[in-house]
Amino acid sequence: MKSDIEIAQSVTLKPITEVVEQVGIGFDDLELYGKYKAKLSFDKIEEVKNNKPGKLILVTAINPTPAGEGKSTMSIGLADALNKIGKKTMIALREPSLGPVMGIKGGAAGGGYAQVLPMEDINLHFTGDMHAITTANNALSALIDNHLHQGNELGIDQRRIIWKRVVDLNDRALRHVTVGLGSPVNGIPREDGFDITVASEIMAILCLATDLEDLKERLANIVIGYRYDRTPVYVKDLQVEGALTLILKDAIKPNLVQTIYGTPALVHGGPFANIAHGCNSVLATTTALRLADYTVTEAGFGADLGAEKFLDIKTPNLPTTPDAIVVVATLRALKMHGGVAKADLTQENVQAVKDGFANLERHVQNMRKYGIPVVVAINEFVTDTADEINALKELCRSIDVPVELASVWADGADGGVDLAKTLIKTIEENPANYTRLYDDSDDLETKITKIVTEIYGGKAVTFGPKAKTQLKQFAQFGWDKLPVCMAKTQYSFSDNPSQLGAPTDFDITIREFVPKTGAGFIVALTGDVMTMPGLPKKPAALNMDVAPDGTAIGLF
Amino acid sequence: MKSDIEIAQSVTLKPITEVVEQVGIGFDDLELYGKYKAKLSFDKIEEVKNNKPGKLILVTAINPTPAGEGKSTMSIGLADALNKIGKKTMIALREPSLGPVMGIKGGAAGGGYAQVLPMEDINLHFTGDMHAITTANNALSALIDNHLHQGNELGIDQRRIIWKRVVDLNDRALRHVTVGLGSPVNGIPREDGFDITVASEIMAILCLATDLEDLKERLANIVIGYRYDRTPVYVKDLQVEGALTLILKDAIKPNLVQTIYGTPALVHGGPFANIAHGCNSVLATTTALRLADYTVTEAGFGADLGAEKFLDIKTPNLPTTPDAIVVVATLRALKMHGGVAKADLTQENVQAVKDGFANLERHVQNMRKYGIPVVVAINEFVTDTADEINALKELCRSIDVPVELASVWADGADGGVDLAKTLIKTIEENPANYTRLYDDSDDLETKITKIVTEIYGGKAVTFGPKAKTQLKQFAQFGWDKLPVCMAKTQYSFSDNPSQLGAPTDFDITIREFVPKTGAGFIVALTGDVMTMPGLPKKPAALNMDVAPDGTAIGLF
Repeated sequence: MKSDIEIAQSVTLKPITEVVEQVGIGFDDLELYGKYKAKLSFDKIEEVKNNKPGKLILVTAINPTPAGEGKSTMSIGLADALNKIGKKTMIALREPSLGPVMGIKGGAAGGGYAQVLPMEDINLHFTGDMHAITTANNALSALIDNHLHQGNELGIDQRRIIWKRVVDLNDRALRHVTVGLGSPVNGIPREDGFDITVASEIMAILCLATDLEDLKERLANIVIGYRYDRTPVYVKDLQVEGALTLILKDAIKPNLVQTIYGTPALVHGGPFANIAHGCNSVLATTTALRLADYTVTEAGFGADLGAEKFLDIKTPNLPTTPDAIVVVATLRALKMHGGVAKADLTQENVQAVKDGFANLERHVQNMRKYGIPVVVAINEFVTDTADEINALKELCRSIDVPVELASVWADGADGGVDLAKTLIKTIEENPANYTRLYDDSDDLETKITKIVTEIYGGKAVTFGPKAKTQLKQFAQFGWDKLPVCMAKTQYSFSDNPSQLGAPTDFDITIREFVPKTGAGFIVALTGDVMTMPGLPKKPAALNMDVAPDGTAIGLF
Repeated sequence: MKSDIEIAQSVTLKPITEVVEQVGIGFDDLELYGKYKAKLSFDKIEEVKNNKPGKLILVTAINPTPAGEGKSTMSIGLADALNKIGKKTMIALREPSLGPVMGIKGGAAGGGYAQVLPMEDINLHFTGDMHAITTANNALSALIDNHLHQGNELGIDQRRIIWKRVVDLNDRALRHVTVGLGSPVNGIPREDGFDITVASEIMAILCLATDLEDLKERLANIVIGYRYDRTPVYVKDLQVEGALTLILKDAIKPNLVQTIYGTPALVHGGPFANIAHGCNSVLATTTALRLADYTVTEAGFGADLGAEKFLDIKTPNLPTTPDAIVVVATLRALKMHGGVAKADLTQENVQAVKDGFANLERHVQNMRKYGIPVVVAINEFVTDTADEINALKELCRSIDVPVELASVWADGADGGVDLAKTLIKTIEENPANYTRLYDDSDDLETKITKIVTEIYGGKAVTFGPKAKTQLKQFAQFGWDKLPVCMAKTQYSFSDNPSQLGAPTDFDITIREFVPKTGAGFIVALTGDVMTMPGLPKKPAALNMDVAPDGTAIGLF
């Protein structure tokens, strides 16, 4: 069996100029990065501003398990299949982070015959967006420390600076550091830490900004810490939002690439789904909607986290709302939700499929609460048996949700045609009627309670002592009318990663809030959130190399 | 008077594809980064490998003073003037670092009517080379800390790790840090520090590597620290040279841009001139030599530092040796070397010109020791008087060195025509006969003594206690046959920055050595070397902004 990189390198790519002709993008609309990658010009984005948006398809999934669900692969294969049946389709995806690539084998550009290409570039530096975000983030840190060092006119309390530095690497040794050591000429000593770049608020901002001016306004509204009197200090107090915007002026432009089947793909922005909203950029999704008749996009993790944030945080920034939601599942993952251990997944187990279905069912019903029709996509594996498949189909019928098997990993566009047809039929027969879960005018407690009870299926929310204090402060600062961005384990509806299936009878405890006033949401922490991964004992980097002609080796 | 950015933005750029046609580069040889920047493909570099190299012109200068000498501006103007008089010329320059741009107004892409464009891009992210170097450098740091954390099989002494992290920013608070704090899951606590990216050994390596295989071999030979038994640990011991090369596979390709007059410019690589060799990449210079009849290139700081390293470290890696050296001076700077304070420079002072000439004269005579003909270029300022100019010309005639006034800042190519003609005449009438100052087989003491006595004009070299111990160790490790890279103040021939003019009767003390076995040289430290700048009280960032259409504001 060919590896992802072998399949990717066996494809003859078309020049990106040719790929994008089908959606009306010309040579002069592009800023090329080599022959197969490009950024879309501001002029083109402006030109299509009044185009009627096409249909929006959101791909989400059951709670992830170690068995994998293949959401990106399904999104790509579905877009290819839609084009195959004659629907003018684009795909809008997140861009991967370089850091994890050095750690564990496995990219973020799809897999098998459902990939976006050139996958080597997309997984390495791509068009430099991550580097621009890293630079803007760390320029802000340097400017903060310089402000302290040069007299601290703003009276910033160095013990209460919440803005951290970032690197786009898995580097556990940088989680907690002390800076400013050595001598008075090296600044004010203080504790700091590094997150991975995708966890930066600037990444979330880039993904929600609608243009350069909106970007600058959001950057200006970042809270970097507090004064000695506990009042917040914003980037606008430091007057550096212009410089930060300048650093990001190209990163905000959406990137164009292609799938194996030549579907134009916008791959842009990649905020961490556990500390931010976890979807690709508003500008990319919006642009796709205005250029194509169908846009396929994806939200991070399971539907309880990723799709909820897509629908409650991102959607209000889009020119339209989703017309259909595809919930991806695999029989293997459902069997894990039904209690089977990973080692036993190759054994047929119809009862476990039935038991695990509870997880899928709750996600389907949750998505329906937003007034959007749902289709279930089963990502086919060779170990799936006919009885298991039939059992799952039967269960889907029992809750009236269309279901299709799709083999896009192995068969590419052909493997997604049934799903594409069912999806089109669903959209045509069931007009969506989007309703947001909460209103901005709800206070933070209300918003969180709605998410916990209506989406997670929990009983109630408990606020810890720190969170309670913050609720009062945030109301004073005028932050209580912002949307909530939940930081919770992706593995369970509850805050306990080992509770698979569809747990009930649980509470959620909010330990602490983190203000992301630039991005425009308040993060609610339900436990420790890992914002800087580490490398494994044998990092993937050990197997990487490059041939004398520049061909990547061992990347995946 | 227009600012640099106003002049730059008033120019209508040609597409880079058109600019490079004059040197035989076609569309398929390019990897475009937008319309006005491109990387040259490995295929094209390979195709021209056997072309006879053209003439090489090295631009250097007197010791820099706060009055400025305008070396990059002169290099660009000279190349434009050579093209103007019908000589097929390319220019090969260093690329600027983003960090200092946020600190102090003033770019590194020339000035006035002698600039490389698009200057905004060149001064910001350009084609991402700096970011790739930052990433490779910090990936190595993460892999080292991960090695310690995962059992430390190689027995690395965490107190003796010499590999530091980098950021491409001026950030004094990162000079000395502690990492690995917080808990056992965050790795091994140890002291570390950040340099600015251009000070990374990986930058020096990228600038000396002749192809991807050479790059990988040099990366493998980096010393990252020592074991508990004091033996060196190399990157090859960690087996990650392949991954680091992969991260750098595009950064090694030279970047093509244009001057205001449409001269094709290779702008690639920018190692710090005080801790490394300070010239643009071997691959860029070599490629220019094979494509054009004349290549103008530049070395960092004054001729005692930059040109010495160009001639003793870089030149042996080139397919040819310089055919002429241009030493740039200004009357203002010579007057400072003659004892005038900066505030008094606008006053005519012929005697100070005569006194300061000693600095210029020593640089001219030094360059002649390498067997290469020298031309002096006076970078014209409005405050220069006829008597001062005549005095300087007279002094130059007294030592038989051709001298020309050039007004490239104000007049562009026209302002450099006389210089270009004199230079061509000098090259045609005086064939160069390059002699290196020392042999690789000389030991480190001998190499340093030759540099100090023959170039700096000092009496002798003293080695401090640490340096003496290292001399013995380095001989054991087989590092004593490498070239020497001097780290010394750029402001004086001596190691005392306040000794202007042409001091004699001084010794140089070598405090410590730093092995850069990947780059392939040993750094000799004569004092404290600043490898991480800080930001000023009012950073340039405060004035930066970007217009809604993406136009940079306040960059220079």
